[in-house]
Amino acid sequence: MADPWQECMDYCVEVTKQAGKMICEALQKDIAVMQKSSPVDLVTETDQKVEQLIISSIKEKYPTHSFIGEESVAAGSPSLLTDNPTWIIDPIDGTTNFVHRFPFVSVSIGFTVKKKVEFGIVYSCIEDKLYTARKGKGAFCNGAPIKVSGQQDICQSLVLTEMGFKKDPEHFRIMMDNMKAILTIPVHGIRSPGSAAVNMCLVACGAADAYYHMGIHCWDMAGGAAILTEAGGVIVDISGGPFDLMSRRLIIASSRPIAERLVKEITVFPCGRDDTEG
Amino acid sequence: MADPWQECMDYCVEVTKQAGKMICEALQKDIAVMQKSSPVDLVTETDQKVEQLIISSIKEKYPTHSFIGEESVAAGSPSLLTDNPTWIIDPIDGTTNFVHRFPFVSVSIGFTVKKKVEFGIVYSCIEDKLYTARKGKGAFCNGAPIKVSGQQDICQSLVLTEMGFKKDPEHFRIMMDNMKAILTIPVHGIRSPGSAAVNMCLVACGAADAYYHMGIHCWDMAGGAAILTEAGGVIVDISGGPFDLMSRRLIIASSRPIAERLVKEITVFPCGRDDTEG
Repeated sequence: MADPWQECMDYCVEVTKQAGKMICEALQKDIAVMQKSSPVDLVTETDQKVEQLIISSIKEKYPTHSFIGEESVAAGSPSLLTDNPTWIIDPIDGTTNFVHRFPFVSVSIGFTVKKKVEFGIVYSCIEDKLYTARKGKGAFCNGAPIKVSGQQDICQSLVLTEMGFKKDPEHFRIMMDNMKAILTIPVHGIRSPGSAAVNMCLVACGAADAYYHMGIHCWDMAGGAAILTEAGGVIVDISGGPFDLMSRRLIIASSRPIAERLVKEITVFPCGRDDTEG
Repeated sequence: MADPWQECMDYCVEVTKQAGKMICEALQKDIAVMQKSSPVDLVTETDQKVEQLIISSIKEKYPTHSFIGEESVAAGSPSLLTDNPTWIIDPIDGTTNFVHRFPFVSVSIGFTVKKKVEFGIVYSCIEDKLYTARKGKGAFCNGAPIKVSGQQDICQSLVLTEMGFKKDPEHFRIMMDNMKAILTIPVHGIRSPGSAAVNMCLVACGAADAYYHMGIHCWDMAGGAAILTEAGGVIVDISGGPFDLMSRRLIIASSRPIAERLVKEITVFPCGRDDTEG
């Protein structure tokens, strides 16, 4: 028992693959059927089924562990991180992508002990890319080691973020102003793939140099955080302080200078915490 | 000889696959080497080599045909569309993605006769997706038929566009205002994959519902235009008039109502024409 959590991780990989298979099968449904009924219903149904599969499989094997899952929280379960071994689960990261079959849809699972992430798994199932990372043992994509680009120069960077309509006009204005501020540094460009977990993995494997986001949840970040860190990346709070899994915001980067520059450019808007809501 | 251009298309598929292979080989180069030398040099070198491969292969077989290629035009060749059979070539669509190994990098070839696109090929080579379309014969991805989503409701749509720094502050302001206008309709979201040709194919296969862009070139649009049209999509000028391959701008959509709504929302900025520059 040199590494008590490796067995959990190995099991998690198997469960994640099954979950990804279930998502891909749901996506195989005839487009016409999906459009005649409600795509939103399909995603909700699949989201719940996938989360149930994951949680029931893990509970069977580890009955004393805790769970924070997007759908369970939506159904009223608490979203409190304790010292107990905890599985933080996003059954479908990129639900809008799922509805449209836009090719970045992932299962994201992070595992914490004493509130620290021990391992992370992100399976981008349409791409069939399985990202894995165990603390201290490096990050991998389909078994091959990955690392961040190491880029230090913000002007040579490709930056990821997401933009969406926000009901609060002030949040919307800040979101747009942040994009403007970053584009005018200038950077090489901004890309918006639409899945937080995949974004983190794209930075982890060097395909992009940074990613920032406000308003996401711990289940969007937990798996990717392990992968990014093990790939040599930097993860901080959007204010520049230490990353806080429950804070609903993050900056990740291929290097500290890029993270620090983004901290300077980005205006923060309040987005609450995962562990004080509901 | 029922279809005089089918043979050209079959040949084009083979040449495009070779070109994609060349790009993937260039991307295999050690990241460290790429970063120590200049990634911009690598992309320029690969761009030129791939375009030379494509043009020399086609010229050998069709010596009387005309060519408009991104790199040839950059080197001073005219960018004039005539009635002669013409191959319009983007050797690497998504050069910034290429530099970063962001996974949307494509070879795009459109073939026109009497200024009308007869067929189009787009090979998204990291994804290994080959999109093909012959006028009147449908659109395909890796041999399987594809079609647009058919979505009619802009509020249910996923919209693609690209954002970048623009030296002209007025253009930059309009670009950002257009994004704001579309997000606040509201749509489901905006995605920015970073390759015009891939964007057109994503709409063609139903993974997104619309795409708009000002400032691109005929070689970014020619291949994708055939694929989008054959997949049942709508392509118009950004003003709402007929699509003009040399106009450097377009709106494409899964249906006419969505195209028309985008025409209303988008403010035009002048971006010149391909056939009057240089």
